[in-house]
Amino acid sequence: MSASPLFAVPDAADDSMMQMTVEKVTGAVSREVRDSLAVEEPLEIQLTYGQSSQRQTRSISVTMRTPGDDFDLAAGFLMTEGVVRDANDIDQIAFAGRPLIDPEPQTMDALKLGCRQNIVRVDLATDVTVSLGTLQRNFYTTSSCGICGKASLLALRSVCPPRSINNFRVDTQVLYRLPGLLRASQGTFDSTGGLHGAGLFDSDGNLLALREDVGRHNAVDKLIGSEFLADRTPLRDRLLLLSGRASFELLQKALMGGVPMVAAVGAPSSLAVQVAKEFDITLVGFLRENHFNIYHGSKRIDHYTSTVKGSEE
Amino acid sequence: MSASPLFAVPDAADDSMMQMTVEKVTGAVSREVRDSLAVEEPLEIQLTYGQSSQRQTRSISVTMRTPGDDFDLAAGFLMTEGVVRDANDIDQIAFAGRPLIDPEPQTMDALKLGCRQNIVRVDLATDVTVSLGTLQRNFYTTSSCGICGKASLLALRSVCPPRSINNFRVDTQVLYRLPGLLRASQGTFDSTGGLHGAGLFDSDGNLLALREDVGRHNAVDKLIGSEFLADRTPLRDRLLLLSGRASFELLQKALMGGVPMVAAVGAPSSLAVQVAKEFDITLVGFLRENHFNIYHGSKRIDHYTSTVKGSEE
Repeated sequence: MSASPLFAVPDAADDSMMQMTVEKVTGAVSREVRDSLAVEEPLEIQLTYGQSSQRQTRSISVTMRTPGDDFDLAAGFLMTEGVVRDANDIDQIAFAGRPLIDPEPQTMDALKLGCRQNIVRVDLATDVTVSLGTLQRNFYTTSSCGICGKASLLALRSVCPPRSINNFRVDTQVLYRLPGLLRASQGTFDSTGGLHGAGLFDSDGNLLALREDVGRHNAVDKLIGSEFLADRTPLRDRLLLLSGRASFELLQKALMGGVPMVAAVGAPSSLAVQVAKEFDITLVGFLRENHFNIYHGSKRIDHYTSTVKGSEE
Repeated sequence: MSASPLFAVPDAADDSMMQMTVEKVTGAVSREVRDSLAVEEPLEIQLTYGQSSQRQTRSISVTMRTPGDDFDLAAGFLMTEGVVRDANDIDQIAFAGRPLIDPEPQTMDALKLGCRQNIVRVDLATDVTVSLGTLQRNFYTTSSCGICGKASLLALRSVCPPRSINNFRVDTQVLYRLPGLLRASQGTFDSTGGLHGAGLFDSDGNLLALREDVGRHNAVDKLIGSEFLADRTPLRDRLLLLSGRASFELLQKALMGGVPMVAAVGAPSSLAVQVAKEFDITLVGFLRENHFNIYHGSKRIDHYTSTVKGSEE
């Protein structure tokens, strides 16, 4: 479960889904059924940083996420955006939110959410240098990133950690098994149908970790953040499996986590493929039980017969 | 097509997808095939506003989007975030980006993107008041939104336009047809598999407009922005169909556009359902050829036999 012994994880009930009664219509007849919904709530990430004399706290991101593993999410976000590079860069992670002040009764009977712990504050070690420029430049989801795909790639090059040599390889038959393994473990997905899943596998196809969220980038942040806090990054010998599509942002996160191979059940975007090529990440799309597409890096996939003329650069 | 005659739309080729050669593996054999990818590129939206003496331009958002209908996207974003309320609030929309300065040759043969027009500047009329507070508060994707679901709803209440009475109703059998109609029109989706679709229908099930994007929120912004620029908002007699899941942000945009009914092929999130209940938007999820779930507002759906005890509030 939620990785690190360094940080106290709240003893929460399962906040990731809720029950409500919905009207289910089949053909021309409806009936009431109990249904599970993926919970979606905002999370603000605050960063405390600077030398002891001039310590400051800044709000750096708000994302709509599914509650749970929020410390991993915050750590993964900071790590994959290049703000922290080592688990020791983080002194403490804590909830900083207050209970909702307005005590008026809920008017929505079916959905009594109350106010959750939706602000996470990350205290960096005093020797960690955070440039506001970095904060500004690197948050692709919240600020400027160069304003063209090529510039986005250049910006990524400037923050990504040095690439380490890895010999990660996976067998074709192992790849075919991964979506089924992810689905079988995606309990919440099965009951709500509303969550994206991100799974971490070794080269034998063992599922080592799984995270789910209404936001696909959050699922990946939680997954990588958990490994980061446990000091297991870079993830040289790991494959990242995405239950949906592969976009620029997800490849960026894989790159920052040191993952050599990303497989997606859905389609990749153009910019995702560009990141894969530029940084030599093997990228597989449309992964199903008996077929997949390779967009880059077939050298890491074993045991299939290629009718392709030459291998890629 | 791209709505308004007010604004010059660039005479672009189809920038929304690109071709590349991929290695397609089936069983244990691969072959090379030509494949279409959904293009993903950043778009920065800049806002010029203020009285003539103190006019200023500010960058207010960067999103990863699929190129095309960028003026609609900018207008829809501003409209659904509550910055503008009327097409006349906008004086002009224009591309403000420059060609990429760095002329180094592309190293990625398969993906020669070059630099596109990725900055859009929206000039507001001088009599439009933009409070920086509004800019700060209301951009759910980029800044704070109250930090709990309930507070997000309260914030939404403060910016949403007054609700107008509408008598929109749709027949159950019409609903069943909608996903097929959307898919049939989603040409780009068929060839890339990577785009989210958003469709606008009337109560007879006629598809009036369709937009696609790698970002689901962008598809909705483009759709509503196009209607907004053509002076057809609020969309009182329209149904918004989403090809994927329904999140808070998408319901927010439907609300700001005045849409009385949202149907999603995928699952809704908890906060999406809360917005639907709070603002009385009919919300249907898991819409397929012969079944769907109603999360709120069954009063707008005709011709099915309900075995449910009473109708909702």
